[in-house]
Amino acid sequence: MISLKTITISAALLAVNSASFAFDTLPATPKVPADNPMSAAKIELGKQLFFDPRLSVDGTISCNSCHNVMAGGTDNRDFSVGVKGQKGGRSAPTVWNAAFLSAQFWDGRAATLEDQAKGPILAGVEMGMPSEQAAVDRIKSIPGYVQSFKAVFGGNDPVTYDNIAKAIATYERTLITINSPFDRYNRGDKSAMSASAVMGMKKVKSLGCTSCHNGVNFAGPDLPIGQGFYQKFPTFPGSEYDKKYKLTEDTGRYEVTKDSADKHMWRVPTWRNVALTAPYFHNGSVKTLDEAVRVMAKTQLNKEVSDADVKDIVAFLNSLTGTFPTQTMPRLPDFADATMTD
Amino acid sequence: MISLKTITISAALLAVNSASFAFDTLPATPKVPADNPMSAAKIELGKQLFFDPRLSVDGTISCNSCHNVMAGGTDNRDFSVGVKGQKGGRSAPTVWNAAFLSAQFWDGRAATLEDQAKGPILAGVEMGMPSEQAAVDRIKSIPGYVQSFKAVFGGNDPVTYDNIAKAIATYERTLITINSPFDRYNRGDKSAMSASAVMGMKKVKSLGCTSCHNGVNFAGPDLPIGQGFYQKFPTFPGSEYDKKYKLTEDTGRYEVTKDSADKHMWRVPTWRNVALTAPYFHNGSVKTLDEAVRVMAKTQLNKEVSDADVKDIVAFLNSLTGTFPTQTMPRLPDFADATMTD
Repeated sequence: MISLKTITISAALLAVNSASFAFDTLPATPKVPADNPMSAAKIELGKQLFFDPRLSVDGTISCNSCHNVMAGGTDNRDFSVGVKGQKGGRSAPTVWNAAFLSAQFWDGRAATLEDQAKGPILAGVEMGMPSEQAAVDRIKSIPGYVQSFKAVFGGNDPVTYDNIAKAIATYERTLITINSPFDRYNRGDKSAMSASAVMGMKKVKSLGCTSCHNGVNFAGPDLPIGQGFYQKFPTFPGSEYDKKYKLTEDTGRYEVTKDSADKHMWRVPTWRNVALTAPYFHNGSVKTLDEAVRVMAKTQLNKEVSDADVKDIVAFLNSLTGTFPTQTMPRLPDFADATMTD
Repeated sequence: MISLKTITISAALLAVNSASFAFDTLPATPKVPADNPMSAAKIELGKQLFFDPRLSVDGTISCNSCHNVMAGGTDNRDFSVGVKGQKGGRSAPTVWNAAFLSAQFWDGRAATLEDQAKGPILAGVEMGMPSEQAAVDRIKSIPGYVQSFKAVFGGNDPVTYDNIAKAIATYERTLITINSPFDRYNRGDKSAMSASAVMGMKKVKSLGCTSCHNGVNFAGPDLPIGQGFYQKFPTFPGSEYDKKYKLTEDTGRYEVTKDSADKHMWRVPTWRNVALTAPYFHNGSVKTLDEAVRVMAKTQLNKEVSDADVKDIVAFLNSLTGTFPTQTMPRLPDFADATMTD
């Protein structure tokens, strides 16, 4: 009895004392697939490809155009602009810390960063390459790339669409923002977060936000790659927000699976650097983080939050803005007599 | 008499011996205007602005979109693509070594890099900002920029359109590609250029190309800033090329001055890194450097050049590809609750 009581009390004390330690610090490195090991040369090649607009049909759009690593990893638009001024149908998710997600795209239709990288290059409204072969041919027409692919991947014919994706994914696995104020606080530096942010951290737990937004990326538990962590949005339909922000027009993962159980299911997005990635949600319909918090509380938890709650929660979310590693600009391999045409 | 003869002979010998030394090595630093001194903080601010798509109306186009410093300083297109997929009417000139030009734009309508920087931001088919004030307001809405402008320029209201241009121009004055094979050869390293390139160097002199393409940037003599070095193109009209490459549709500097003497006058463009900046001429109508050499010989010198001449001259032009300095990527200042809209 005494023993049990002690344990119970200890556990309760622990729960109180460690309330601020219940979240995970972001690791400095992600899991790396066995069939795509990282190397300095592969990272550099991937960085070149990530920044190279020649991967788009008319030479105007690079991966970085919509996933701007010099900023929060997005383009701060509702819908991204691709070749010929065309717009996509969903808001670009951040590339920062995407290496920690177990599924990619808003609807989880790609399991890995490698699979994800293959999508936008061929999407007509994004980079607009007519085929995998067209992308491969473009890269093969640049001698410096051929040389780098040989050095990195070996073999007789290393410039393949798979290897293009592997190099890009490898670079993306370096895009990690450790040492956010939250992470420093979580490691013991109590001065790293404001009192309001600490309050916000407690509130996201007590409100229930963290039943989904947990794990190192605040995007759900550490699932095997390919097994996405999805939630229905809105979980509580019928609020004023559904119409105001067109929350139900896009059916989410259902578009991929055509399984009615997947209607309005979405991969839970990261909270890391969320203060830099307005506008919010899959359709970028909500312009401020304050309003995004209100919408989430109502549609996912059926709760109203006070202005004070919103202020504290937004302060906490701001504490998840990490330290962006210093990067050198890639030099894009020379392309003699190149003309990009429409 | 003896004295005079000696001098004459010496001069002749000098001319022969120094035939390969008649061109200028690229200096490591350009002239800096007295009213815009350089500093590390101003360079960094200018780099941020240069790479920041938020200087365009919809957040999609940065200076770097068309003047890609990770490549040869252009977009390798005939006409650049601006906001909403719109196209400009002339091919983007390289930003590399533009600091050594005495006038900017193809038609010299801007005297300085500062003046030049103000153009594309407001051009409807480029970055599309509706007014200087709109650009200033955008930058003022980003707290990190306000802080940097205060640190760099001082004063109560340092975020001005003039200062935006000053910062960008300051960054551009660092975009210099010293140590090309030609420059190394010119400083005495005879192994730096191939035999063909050395032949090409002699041929551009003997053909007369260098009567215009001279000076440190192979873009004309060292004139006072604002005094552009212009030539008529085509100087010898009537060749097949006029029609084939639409050489006379655009009247060049005449569009600026409305002086009939300026019809088809163009600022002589640099040869440095020209191998990286296809397609060629103000309208990007010529796709290869080989053909550009043929067109120039015919239209400017009324000469036919052999395939061997073209090969050597192109080898020489390739020897003008410089060493691109390693640069860190700028971090764009945070922009909380930012949405870029159309």
